[in-house]
Amino acid sequence: MNDGRSILILAGGAGTRLWPLSTEDDPKQFLPLFDGASLLQKTWERLLPLAGDPARLFVSTNERYRAKVEAQLPDLPPANVLVEPARKNTAPAIAICCREIARRGLRSVGIFPSDHAVADDAEFRRVASRAFEHAESHDDLATIGLEPDEPNTGFGYLELGSPIAEGVVRLERFVEKPDRATAEEYLRSGRYAWNGGMFIWRLETFFAALEKHAPEIAALSGRYAAAPPDERRSVYDQMPSISIDYAVMEKAQNIVTIRGEFGWSDVGSWSAVARFASGEAPEHLVREEASGVYVSSDGSRPVAVVGLDRIAVIDSPRGLLVIDLDDADLLSKLVARMRDER
Amino acid sequence: MNDGRSILILAGGAGTRLWPLSTEDDPKQFLPLFDGASLLQKTWERLLPLAGDPARLFVSTNERYRAKVEAQLPDLPPANVLVEPARKNTAPAIAICCREIARRGLRSVGIFPSDHAVADDAEFRRVASRAFEHAESHDDLATIGLEPDEPNTGFGYLELGSPIAEGVVRLERFVEKPDRATAEEYLRSGRYAWNGGMFIWRLETFFAALEKHAPEIAALSGRYAAAPPDERRSVYDQMPSISIDYAVMEKAQNIVTIRGEFGWSDVGSWSAVARFASGEAPEHLVREEASGVYVSSDGSRPVAVVGLDRIAVIDSPRGLLVIDLDDADLLSKLVARMRDER
Repeated sequence: MNDGRSILILAGGAGTRLWPLSTEDDPKQFLPLFDGASLLQKTWERLLPLAGDPARLFVSTNERYRAKVEAQLPDLPPANVLVEPARKNTAPAIAICCREIARRGLRSVGIFPSDHAVADDAEFRRVASRAFEHAESHDDLATIGLEPDEPNTGFGYLELGSPIAEGVVRLERFVEKPDRATAEEYLRSGRYAWNGGMFIWRLETFFAALEKHAPEIAALSGRYAAAPPDERRSVYDQMPSISIDYAVMEKAQNIVTIRGEFGWSDVGSWSAVARFASGEAPEHLVREEASGVYVSSDGSRPVAVVGLDRIAVIDSPRGLLVIDLDDADLLSKLVARMRDER
Repeated sequence: MNDGRSILILAGGAGTRLWPLSTEDDPKQFLPLFDGASLLQKTWERLLPLAGDPARLFVSTNERYRAKVEAQLPDLPPANVLVEPARKNTAPAIAICCREIARRGLRSVGIFPSDHAVADDAEFRRVASRAFEHAESHDDLATIGLEPDEPNTGFGYLELGSPIAEGVVRLERFVEKPDRATAEEYLRSGRYAWNGGMFIWRLETFFAALEKHAPEIAALSGRYAAAPPDERRSVYDQMPSISIDYAVMEKAQNIVTIRGEFGWSDVGSWSAVARFASGEAPEHLVREEASGVYVSSDGSRPVAVVGLDRIAVIDSPRGLLVIDLDDADLLSKLVARMRDER
């Protein structure tokens, strides 16, 4: 029965929020942040049992990162690296990938970011399987809602509606990143989950939604799939640059949320990395009256921190960063300034 | 009239208070902390005009640092590098150096640390000249008292007595490092100066004081000076290990202090280095909501500090240090622990 299931990993992002480790040339999905494996590699390992076979696992990326994807995932069939001809945000990329996956005769797909971290892979798979089961037997677009454990203002939220089945609720609406007071209210109410950008659907359900809410993308992705390879770029260039959330999810009525709690992080800041990292400090970190210190370095020399709590020290050939973990979001301003000054 | 004057620079110290730059193999007098020249080199430049001629300038060090001294001071006559055969603190070292300087026919000596920093060299020389003038015409041991500008608890103090001449006072007593409240009282009273370990005297005045207050060192230093080179070590080994302050200065009654204010630092912590360094931040330092940041690195990559004030980042092949400038004295505990664990 699972033979029609597939997995699509989105690995085309180019964040710099973990500078100096992540850059546009080396975005965070390719970084070995935890346990020596990259986030992409850990995502692959987490999802492979759901797909069952590498032939049903696809990676969406672009030309710039194709070699990195192939090098980091040696078991991924080369034909399953789906390269977008230009950067057009998630809706066009997902649309053309879904066309290709349908062409391979597959029936459903789970779409997941490549640059998030999960603590409990087994529980994650249990939740994702629940989502597949629902999507395979209903005309619904399923998304996974992450149980919030703090009033985070950096994520979008899902407003949860009435229960449909055990762990499955109808989605009321997508909500943009809230301010602090609103996020606290969301957390208190228990009626909101974090939007982790994970989607599970039958391909025919998705194409129906695409035709209804984003007919231009529906048509162009159809033409793209039918075009000979050397004409695809000119078709893709006509795509609007828009996210799947804006293009489809926020308009569709047939959305359900499967609630999940498996120790999730978007790894979106050094503060998120430090929270997710295991508590054990590396041997080359030496501290004096310093707690909550996160260090990333090659271990070739001691890193000493004296009299400072809750900081991260990121030592890389590209740069050295010392950052207050309670002000980690300020990094984006600094990276933008360095880019402008270049 | 100045022909009998000499200068002795003490360059045998082995501090590690500026780890990871300073170590026992590479103590701070040899580090190019300011303007590309080492503290020893800057001390040499500051003092050479007082000596008038490199032939009247001497450096006391030990075998371990001899090559560094010779490399950093190419104009220093090799015979003026006075090497102590063993480490015995300042009293024995100064005693044998003074014997040698007397043997060269010189009449007075000014003794200065090699690892302090001075902002106004000309004013320093004016004060030191005043001390030479007094010492050359009186049977007094002269010391320079530094005007305190904060209630520092890391220095010894000089309690000042009645004035003798313009800028010259009799010394009441040497005072050990005070606690905070006492240091504040000292600062308020205006009757105390910092002891910077700078001494100026006629050699005959010093030998008389040595015979009176430290007869053992007086006798051994006389035997040392008369012994053939291969017997000196065994004489020196009999010396007590004691500082010049304990052995002579705290006992002698004929001490005067010349008050000085020339922008002085003992460069005894990263906090002292940061205070003394010019305000201009290096180009490779990038900051976001971070003020009072001191950086030492080779400039080959950006050093970014985000959301942290008053810290120092010291990036060296030996180690990477991130330290709160208001807790800089904690470094000694960390360095001691690293030494113990080795």
